[in-house]
Amino acid sequence: MTLTPDQKAEIDAARAQSHATRRATVPALEEILYQAFPVLDHGVLRVIDYMGDDGAIVQAARVSYGKGTRKTLEDKGLIDYLMRHRHTTPFEMCEIKFHVKLPIFVARQWIRHRTANVNEYSARYSILDREFYIPAPDHLAAQSRINRQGRGAVLEGEEARKVLELLKTDSERCYASYEWMLNEDETGKQTDPERVGLARELARMNLTINAYTQWYWKTDLHNLFHFLSLRADSHAQYEIRIYAEAMLEMVKRWVPLAFDAFKRYRLGGVHLSAGGLAIVKRLLAGEKVAQEGSGLSAREWRELMAALGREEG
Amino acid sequence: MTLTPDQKAEIDAARAQSHATRRATVPALEEILYQAFPVLDHGVLRVIDYMGDDGAIVQAARVSYGKGTRKTLEDKGLIDYLMRHRHTTPFEMCEIKFHVKLPIFVARQWIRHRTANVNEYSARYSILDREFYIPAPDHLAAQSRINRQGRGAVLEGEEARKVLELLKTDSERCYASYEWMLNEDETGKQTDPERVGLARELARMNLTINAYTQWYWKTDLHNLFHFLSLRADSHAQYEIRIYAEAMLEMVKRWVPLAFDAFKRYRLGGVHLSAGGLAIVKRLLAGEKVAQEGSGLSAREWRELMAALGREEG
Amino acid sequence: MTLTPDQKAEIDAARAQSHATRRATVPALEEILYQAFPVLDHGVLRVIDYMGDDGAIVQAARVSYGKGTRKTLEDKGLIDYLMRHRHTTPFEMCEIKFHVKLPIFVARQWIRHRTANVNEYSARYSILDREFYIPAPDHLAAQSRINRQGRGAVLEGEEARKVLELLKTDSERCYASYEWMLNEDETGKQTDPERVGLARELARMNLTINAYTQWYWKTDLHNLFHFLSLRADSHAQYEIRIYAEAMLEMVKRWVPLAFDAFKRYRLGGVHLSAGGLAIVKRLLAGEKVAQEGSGLSAREWRELMAALGREEG
Amino acid sequence: MTLTPDQKAEIDAARAQSHATRRATVPALEEILYQAFPVLDHGVLRVIDYMGDDGAIVQAARVSYGKGTRKTLEDKGLIDYLMRHRHTTPFEMCEIKFHVKLPIFVARQWIRHRTANVNEYSARYSILDREFYIPAPDHLAAQSRINRQGRGAVLEGEEARKVLELLKTDSERCYASYEWMLNEDETGKQTDPERVGLARELARMNLTINAYTQWYWKTDLHNLFHFLSLRADSHAQYEIRIYAEAMLEMVKRWVPLAFDAFKRYRLGGVHLSAGGLAIVKRLLAGEKVAQEGSGLSAREWRELMAALGREEG
Repeated sequence: MTLTPDQKAEIDAARAQSHATRRATVPALEEILYQAFPVLDHGVLRVIDYMGDDGAIVQAARVSYGKGTRKTLEDKGLIDYLMRHRHTTPFEMCEIKFHVKLPIFVARQWIRHRTANVNEYSARYSILDREFYIPAPDHLAAQSRINRQGRGAVLEGEEARKVLELLKTDSERCYASYEWMLNEDETGKQTDPERVGLARELARMNLTINAYTQWYWKTDLHNLFHFLSLRADSHAQYEIRIYAEAMLEMVKRWVPLAFDAFKRYRLGGVHLSAGGLAIVKRLLAGEKVAQEGSGLSAREWRELMAALGREEG
Repeated sequence: MTLTPDQKAEIDAARAQSHATRRATVPALEEILYQAFPVLDHGVLRVIDYMGDDGAIVQAARVSYGKGTRKTLEDKGLIDYLMRHRHTTPFEMCEIKFHVKLPIFVARQWIRHRTANVNEYSARYSILDREFYIPAPDHLAAQSRINRQGRGAVLEGEEARKVLELLKTDSERCYASYEWMLNEDETGKQTDPERVGLARELARMNLTINAYTQWYWKTDLHNLFHFLSLRADSHAQYEIRIYAEAMLEMVKRWVPLAFDAFKRYRLGGVHLSAGGLAIVKRLLAGEKVAQEGSGLSAREWRELMAALGREEG
Repeated sequence: MTLTPDQKAEIDAARAQSHATRRATVPALEEILYQAFPVLDHGVLRVIDYMGDDGAIVQAARVSYGKGTRKTLEDKGLIDYLMRHRHTTPFEMCEIKFHVKLPIFVARQWIRHRTANVNEYSARYSILDREFYIPAPDHLAAQSRINRQGRGAVLEGEEARKVLELLKTDSERCYASYEWMLNEDETGKQTDPERVGLARELARMNLTINAYTQWYWKTDLHNLFHFLSLRADSHAQYEIRIYAEAMLEMVKRWVPLAFDAFKRYRLGGVHLSAGGLAIVKRLLAGEKVAQEGSGLSAREWRELMAALGREEG
Repeated sequence: MTLTPDQKAEIDAARAQSHATRRATVPALEEILYQAFPVLDHGVLRVIDYMGDDGAIVQAARVSYGKGTRKTLEDKGLIDYLMRHRHTTPFEMCEIKFHVKLPIFVARQWIRHRTANVNEYSARYSILDREFYIPAPDHLAAQSRINRQGRGAVLEGEEARKVLELLKTDSERCYASYEWMLNEDETGKQTDPERVGLARELARMNLTINAYTQWYWKTDLHNLFHFLSLRADSHAQYEIRIYAEAMLEMVKRWVPLAFDAFKRYRLGGVHLSAGGLAIVKRLLAGEKVAQEGSGLSAREWRELMAALGREEG
């Protein structure tokens, strides 16, 4: 992450302000408000604004005239109950806004979560920065041999070196062409007065998908939890998971009770199918069960045994 | 509007709190935060929370690291531009939450706006209050003779008196049956120990549609503008329009620049069809144009002339 | 369910038509297309249109140029995989449209599912039929004593008789007032030429919430599964569950492979929290576990034991 | 557009099928169903499926038991009325599904329309084709000098030649590196047995944004009209507008009455702000009005005069 002095000054100014408000306020989140957290090599994650706290969930569930909260223990019990029984609407009453800088290929996965508001930096109007994601050597993974969308062992030696070099030189060459085609500097002044320069909306097509873009992204807590349950999952691509993991820490500061319920009922939980449940019951009854005759496919069986922490049936 | 002493105390307690925050804060809206504004005979409208201000629109449009705002004049120009060209996403970066008490038939229209978060008071869990909407005598309108969904003249004399009486007695009788069937008081205690009492989720079906319900309703500014452009419109039913009008005042306090742009480009504007535009051009060219030969239907012609403030062509 | 001769004739005419199409077509669903299935005492459920079949899910998952389907076994395996791993977008590629007649209080629960398209019969324009939901005697349940939103035993004897009478007479009296206030027959002719008649949008407020309304409701298969997983669940109110159950049969005709996967992985499955999973692991290891010391609340413990089919720990 | 023999065969097979259906069917659209229409240099647009026709709009608006349609003239009048008064829900009752092959930078604009279902070809699982968008020489536009997001004159001579060369060689070099890093052919076989090969989800990041992707995209008619009103507009980027224009032709085949209403009331219409309307009224009253003193900014004034077809005030 490299912030320009101007960006640093803007962040400092935002952090320096203090206003009086009657709204629910969360000191632990205020502490890091506007602050830029680094993700990947040039990525950034910042909380820009938020609405509500744990109490707002309780308040909405009770449709109350006041805070709606009672004793901490009762509030915690209610939030647990809502999470466990998937009463999702009270969690929609909290809202959060992030500023994210991220590689385009990550942005393309992220945007598939439709229930969010987004303002992206426009390469039709503006010029993108010369910044590309180059994986750290220990994330340069091979294709998994057992999973069509997973990663296997880390590349090593000459192959790793060559891959990194290709990623770097291709990104840079493409960016150099982009700049040449634009024929303008950041202030819009022509670089070469003899040439006209290609429209920004066209020139950008020459960039590689590891170029960084940025956006404001705003969503409610229920949809954020849904996003996090998919993107903080071990099946998610590392490059988006690392953002999700950084967000988890922020959510924990913001709504500790809801976060705790989320962790226990969603993140750490497991879904058993009808077939899986039947196996568990048979195992509990002391029966020996093997994959053959279990009614589960080899893959489902493997997934179930893994979830139950058993090497084999 | 009738608040119980408990409700008043809850509101006062919420209004008495003051926290320090780094978030964008709008003093004019803080002033009325949590306050209960009466709508119709028993309805209530309250702003419960908000996120963002005019500056947040500018900030999102610029995807900036800081406030994004420059001179007031430039910000105003940008907001006008965004509104005029229907760049809607920056307006989605502001969010507001209302507490609303409203008749069920109004709630049924309101809920059709799907891009909002809602927590409604549940008559499956709880007992509804003995409150029904009875129109004021000057809103007791006849069916319009020219418009299938409009209102005509106000009812008068014996017919008006009889209508009001029917509305009152039917609502009250239905509520009395509801209470009898429930066979419990607000604390859940059986009224008549000899009887079991009907489940709340069933008993409620005996209430009339003018009974009041309440909910927390949260939406972003873009979708709120869409709601207001439809519901503050003269074609909207009076009983929902009156809520929309009360909301307009609140939005004006919250985001005065965006509100002003909304008023000029959306509320006060008019949409001309291809045919309507052709007529305007012919009129401007000094041509005499009549409905016959205009290519517009009688109704479209009437609507166009009304929009242009002309009695006839 | 009472269809007028006109409605019957309309349905027969729709069912009599046959067109040639290149689109994916499902004979088992065509068989019942447009047909009116009775639900509750006056409710109706009809499939009006559909798009796609099991093959369309496979086709979308493979983004293919043709049908995308291969051997039935492979297709089934892919659909199972998509359902198990919550790859939801291929299921969104199938769409279905229903015509539903349902009590207003059921419609109010139903409409909370926002990701659907709806056209409701408008009581602002039109006059509602004289039809109200009156529960069958064996659905006249008392409030549950252990569950705040559930039903307990069935009412009996004099109390049951009185409840049914109240429901009937109140609905009918309210409808009679509605008619009197409207002062018009179905063709719009004034009943009493001496009176003006109240606007339809106002008169309707006197109806009870068990009055029937109707709508066209269209959604995609993924969102329909979500709806069904909540509304065909034993915690759902009987009066909406009965619609969900009728829909399950229709979905089974439409997309048998997807339906089967839904049944096994969602309907018949169970979600274990982190705490619940830990208990299962301890039980499988042969440990004796009781609620005290389990880390689960009494209620969670009860729910877990029920899911595992164990009376006690 | 280059279809492989396999793709051609798949399309032919799909087009050869014919089923009997009771559903509303549109022969003019059936005619081109599944057919691949070329867009840009390698893009494809195909209609894959549809639900409903003009009659389905009328049927939903009337919540009818049968087709709901009456005389063509009445149906047309109703559809016009719905479009003019923005009664949008009946248009949501028609659904259409496209297969689209498009450059990634176009896909990134397209996906911002959130109310649609999408299945994109996954570069995490699969290998993208060696196809990039290279603009035709007459679309190689310079940045507009008056509009920050528009295009100006077409590049010529040496500059044009050089731009095209850069776009081609950069795309190709990046693709060659992509292939080398993958180290596998289409069947998944290693190219160089000495090397491991980089995971697909990583290798793809080296592609340029003009690489082609493809997806299934499904939406309802109301949201499609919204998409088309923005993307078939002269302010839209040429590379997405050309897809929108191809879709317009398909919509015209599908729902000719709704399309005609859309063209007259939306596409060919113009929105006047409160200020713009005031100017029109003054002009119609015979007043001379100039920008100064008009209350409009220079830009708004220019836009208004252009809409009214006047060179100057």
